[in-house]
Amino acid sequence: MQKARPVRSAPQPTRPPVPEGPITRCTRVRVRYADIDRMGIAYHSNYLVWFEVGRTEWLRESGWTYREMEEHDGISLPVIEAHCEYRQPARYDDEIEIRTTAMVLSPVRIRFDYEARITATSTLAVTGYTVHAALGADGRPRRLPPRVLELLQ
Amino acid sequence: MQKARPVRSAPQPTRPPVPEGPITRCTRVRVRYADIDRMGIAYHSNYLVWFEVGRTEWLRESGWTYREMEEHDGISLPVIEAHCEYRQPARYDDEIEIRTTAMVLSPVRIRFDYEARITATSTLAVTGYTVHAALGADGRPRRLPPRVLELLQ
Amino acid sequence: MQKARPVRSAPQPTRPPVPEGPITRCTRVRVRYADIDRMGIAYHSNYLVWFEVGRTEWLRESGWTYREMEEHDGISLPVIEAHCEYRQPARYDDEIEIRTTAMVLSPVRIRFDYEARITATSTLAVTGYTVHAALGADGRPRRLPPRVLELLQ
Amino acid sequence: MQKARPVRSAPQPTRPPVPEGPITRCTRVRVRYADIDRMGIAYHSNYLVWFEVGRTEWLRESGWTYREMEEHDGISLPVIEAHCEYRQPARYDDEIEIRTTAMVLSPVRIRFDYEARITATSTLAVTGYTVHAALGADGRPRRLPPRVLELLQ
Repeated sequence: MQKARPVRSAPQPTRPPVPEGPITRCTRVRVRYADIDRMGIAYHSNYLVWFEVGRTEWLRESGWTYREMEEHDGISLPVIEAHCEYRQPARYDDEIEIRTTAMVLSPVRIRFDYEARITATSTLAVTGYTVHAALGADGRPRRLPPRVLELLQ
Repeated sequence: MQKARPVRSAPQPTRPPVPEGPITRCTRVRVRYADIDRMGIAYHSNYLVWFEVGRTEWLRESGWTYREMEEHDGISLPVIEAHCEYRQPARYDDEIEIRTTAMVLSPVRIRFDYEARITATSTLAVTGYTVHAALGADGRPRRLPPRVLELLQ
Repeated sequence: MQKARPVRSAPQPTRPPVPEGPITRCTRVRVRYADIDRMGIAYHSNYLVWFEVGRTEWLRESGWTYREMEEHDGISLPVIEAHCEYRQPARYDDEIEIRTTAMVLSPVRIRFDYEARITATSTLAVTGYTVHAALGADGRPRRLPPRVLELLQ
Repeated sequence: MQKARPVRSAPQPTRPPVPEGPITRCTRVRVRYADIDRMGIAYHSNYLVWFEVGRTEWLRESGWTYREMEEHDGISLPVIEAHCEYRQPARYDDEIEIRTTAMVLSPVRIRFDYEARITATSTLAVTGYTVHAALGADGRPRRLPPRVLELLQ
């Protein structure tokens, strides 16, 4: 599945400014009582919500919030495809680390890949991805802004 | 989808056909796997969602959908107060009957009262209420439409 | 609560009464205010919850509830893979028809396929599937009971 | 992930070091896309989930996790009453600060009070409380452990 790539925190490569790999970023969520089911494990649909947290924080750290994108650029990124593979269950009160990687598929499509690990043990819980279409305020496909494409290439 | 039958909490006045008591209506929901927690019981915040189903169906049966109200009348009814008392737990796959009663508090305030019972045994699970303010599209208080006030008095 | 009718995806074999195609069943849910997001459409993770409603009702109509299976047979069916493709958005108060088809992948694996359509217009909103592993109370893989395998073949 | 700092709602008693007021603690959550509704504001039932985050972190900082309490002491604290007053809406991507105060009502009852403020502006969004009964693994009322009572008095 998805390759775990090292997190690029800050150190900018000074030269040459050539093809870096895609950027992976991490964020953490804690499994709430509301998130678990009778088996005592995180209910499977929650990972889609946590993946959203992952990509929101990915954008935020790139200096570009989803809220601004919607409110100022008039662009939304609805999910058009989602996929999850559940490997190990996460339990109540576990802290989960979401590693998110972004990739441009086309000028109007982005894909995010995710790995959810239980922080305490580094156990890989779930892998998955989501594909998003860029839409304008009128609901029609719209090209991603140049600064975003640049960021992702 | 949801079976419901009008129930009046007060005896039917035979004549004159004036001041009836408030109208109670019933609707049903089933406890989903996503709704339960580690104790195997319905997580407490779900009752607020089910109460919303109760008042939505209350309105629908009164010939007045919340969707229309928002889209045509430009009025929304945000919750300004909510209260729940949890008496008996509901479990996975239980069918819950929500009995909803509406009451006008003022020309700009409605209150709904709820009883959630486990259908199979009639066990009273939760009681509660919500208070709602009528707001116009501009976010300012607005009087409820006359036909609504009429319906509720 | 939820009306549903059995639908067979393949024409009824007149004779011999052998190998039918997989059985498709329908159930309905309504998009709640809690389910929608800022775009006014059903948030994408809800479809995984509605798919759960679809397979629960599939089982119930087959005379076999998931609750019984867990409580009496000691078998649970955790999701090990989930996939969704989002085609058209569903909106607040839309009634959604979930068509669910079940298929045995192996003696310890079941797959359910889903179509979510907006009832009023028959618009195909989302397609998807989930794969489930049969586990015993000890958390280890366990063969599906013969009556289930029979039902699904 | 969640920053929190102990805050005392009452001035520090310098001496004698006896009866302090109840302890207030803060934790933060961010409003997710999944949490908002068509009005673009946080759906009201989410505050009950965030209040749960508030009391979980309150306990954690007191050196006593809810998970341990359930798993080692065999005590659970189901909600028996919940109340919310909604004053100002929180919006997508707002960071919310939950201030939680705990109080013993009796040897078998705890009450938590909450204030949810929008961090950026300190706007008070919602106030509320929950009351909890201490139950043993057998589902019967059970006294809170002495160290808990001590902590709360």
